[in-house]
Amino acid sequence: MKFSKRLKSMQASPIRKLAPFAAQAKADGVKVYHLNIGQPDIKTPECFFNAVKNFNEPVLEYAGSQGIPELIEALQKYYETYDMHFSKDDFIVTNGGSEGLLFTFMAMCDPGDNILIPEPFYTNYNGFGQSINMEVKPITTKAENGFHLPPKEEIVAQIDDKTKAILVSNPGNPTGCVYTKEEVYMLAEIVKEHDLWLVADEVYREFIYEGLQYTSFGNVKEIEDRCVIIDSVSKRYSACGARIGSIACKNAELMGEIMKLCQGRLCIATLEQLGAAALFNETPASYLKAVNEEYCKRRDTLYNELMKVDGVICEKPMGAFYIVAKLPVDNAEDFVKWMLQEFRMDGATVMATPAEGFYATPGLGRDEIRLAYILKEEDLKVAGKLLAEGLKAYKTAMANA
Amino acid sequence: MKFSKRLKSMQASPIRKLAPFAAQAKADGVKVYHLNIGQPDIKTPECFFNAVKNFNEPVLEYAGSQGIPELIEALQKYYETYDMHFSKDDFIVTNGGSEGLLFTFMAMCDPGDNILIPEPFYTNYNGFGQSINMEVKPITTKAENGFHLPPKEEIVAQIDDKTKAILVSNPGNPTGCVYTKEEVYMLAEIVKEHDLWLVADEVYREFIYEGLQYTSFGNVKEIEDRCVIIDSVSKRYSACGARIGSIACKNAELMGEIMKLCQGRLCIATLEQLGAAALFNETPASYLKAVNEEYCKRRDTLYNELMKVDGVICEKPMGAFYIVAKLPVDNAEDFVKWMLQEFRMDGATVMATPAEGFYATPGLGRDEIRLAYILKEEDLKVAGKLLAEGLKAYKTAMANA
Repeated sequence: MKFSKRLKSMQASPIRKLAPFAAQAKADGVKVYHLNIGQPDIKTPECFFNAVKNFNEPVLEYAGSQGIPELIEALQKYYETYDMHFSKDDFIVTNGGSEGLLFTFMAMCDPGDNILIPEPFYTNYNGFGQSINMEVKPITTKAENGFHLPPKEEIVAQIDDKTKAILVSNPGNPTGCVYTKEEVYMLAEIVKEHDLWLVADEVYREFIYEGLQYTSFGNVKEIEDRCVIIDSVSKRYSACGARIGSIACKNAELMGEIMKLCQGRLCIATLEQLGAAALFNETPASYLKAVNEEYCKRRDTLYNELMKVDGVICEKPMGAFYIVAKLPVDNAEDFVKWMLQEFRMDGATVMATPAEGFYATPGLGRDEIRLAYILKEEDLKVAGKLLAEGLKAYKTAMANA
Repeated sequence: MKFSKRLKSMQASPIRKLAPFAAQAKADGVKVYHLNIGQPDIKTPECFFNAVKNFNEPVLEYAGSQGIPELIEALQKYYETYDMHFSKDDFIVTNGGSEGLLFTFMAMCDPGDNILIPEPFYTNYNGFGQSINMEVKPITTKAENGFHLPPKEEIVAQIDDKTKAILVSNPGNPTGCVYTKEEVYMLAEIVKEHDLWLVADEVYREFIYEGLQYTSFGNVKEIEDRCVIIDSVSKRYSACGARIGSIACKNAELMGEIMKLCQGRLCIATLEQLGAAALFNETPASYLKAVNEEYCKRRDTLYNELMKVDGVICEKPMGAFYIVAKLPVDNAEDFVKWMLQEFRMDGATVMATPAEGFYATPGLGRDEIRLAYILKEEDLKVAGKLLAEGLKAYKTAMANA
């Protein structure tokens, strides 16, 4: 039996590959603070569970392939609050944002085609690409300027005749970068001039701090026929286990192509769709406001701890709940392993994600880590201190090695 | 913006494309009996909903990518009852059987590779294939002998150096054919001799009638390292809207490749997995027995009505809940449309699915339809009569045209 090259060449998840070292530390009785994963500890709104529990049909039937009408209507209303005006036909409910991305790529790219993505990027973008023989061409961004976009000419230089789209995550995972209005319009101009699609992964739309102005790609009238918005309830409502995402796009032909795939996979889980509709319709605005304030405090706590260490480079991120920091180490993966294997303070250590796996350009990000500030503030304070102390101890250990 | 050829060349679902004609008939006040879809009317066991309602965590977190331990243990026990002995690592929970098939194909085939499938087959097999640039090579089977397999040499003749697997649906959708032990072992021999994978879609395993002996591909020791079993709770427990399927396979390397994709899509909905675990653990054996008996009666009812019409050719199917019948018409799609647009008896008509879309060989199946016997017996009796009378009236109408 043979295995496909498309999967053989795919790397295992860089977020998960150091998990065995964390498991060993725990087996040894060490408390591990996880800053490596994006699973929030925030409560899921009660209305989700209530909607699920109120389901009272005798048969759990297939839903329609597009999604249930209640959820599509809820999505439509939600986007109205961001001044994005979609009709019901402009939506497809997907199995998390992940399926939305995969199906969108399938509709745009044949094998050998490519899309541009600013790096560092969410590693699974690359995984989805490899699984369908699509290539990712990186637009390199840097810690030094908070991972904002390079000048237009640098981006345009990456476009070739196989380029079909530009994909951005805004606010960014893993960078936490929120693009300025100028950056958003620059990308809009590029996709218009080069006849490309713009795919915007905006699942962290509510996670923007200090009242910073946010421009969604869905607000740019000039590209409304070529813009695809990917969304998800996972982070917004702390409902990662619901697997409810969506595609919003005004290009009927593209939605028709994607619907062929949706009909093939039949439908999305009915109960979870009912729960998601309730999340949009019933969650009080105070919930999102409180969550936003909580994350903003957490960001400050972690960022302040990081800034206490000489040689750490990162701008304060304005969105999402991640920080990518450049560390004064040669190899961040070695450092993360060392923290799990060697470093203990009051019987505890901390786990980060080496950032190299978030880059497509070989060698980049080797001295960087991604941190998710998803712990309660008191825990985060401890985790931040552990990291700061760990970095100092690692420096000493390396100097003495 | 450009669209991919892989999706542009994909046909819309043949099961859904005549839906507008049915909608028009209903708008005209006509009662339409649907024999065209595979949505059972059987009640979902209460234990599914109870398990979902008993979920009591404050945060709906990501599950592990493999699936929740409760469900994996339940699957393991379930297969034991069929004398299939898997370890826990041999399972992956998927988003319906659909995702299981897609990921399996991705792990086996690069663009241009092919798999063999007996035709007529479940149309989405072809859709999944096209979406990842994999080709389907048909092994033609015929209504005249109940869609059983052709001789070994005819199958082997279809294998070329790009062939990676044989996929079978057993019991078959849309044919209802249950392969004999000899057929199962013949396919096992072929995949061993030609170093291919065997992918067995066995979601209708419980739908076998008159106590017919059933051999699962999972029972064939000789191919246990190359056999992949695709399964689903959708039909077994009338839980189509749960979207819970699974892959069972003893080849650790293949499972490792598929797990890369699973990590990319993160996980399957937690609540639905809890419900599915309860289905396996708590549904009384009497439920499946009663469902089996109910479908067997329905099959007889529909089959007997079909046999009253001169020129209809089909063997009595022994499994699943479909019949593919060859009709005395030139074009079954025209007939199905005519039934929806012209034929009324006591204000009612019936909808079937033209079977041509279930074939990969051009021209085959043009005079065939697929019928799903998923209605209550009294409704099915009426639907069967409508179909029989419709066929007679169509013959007269065509003769006079």
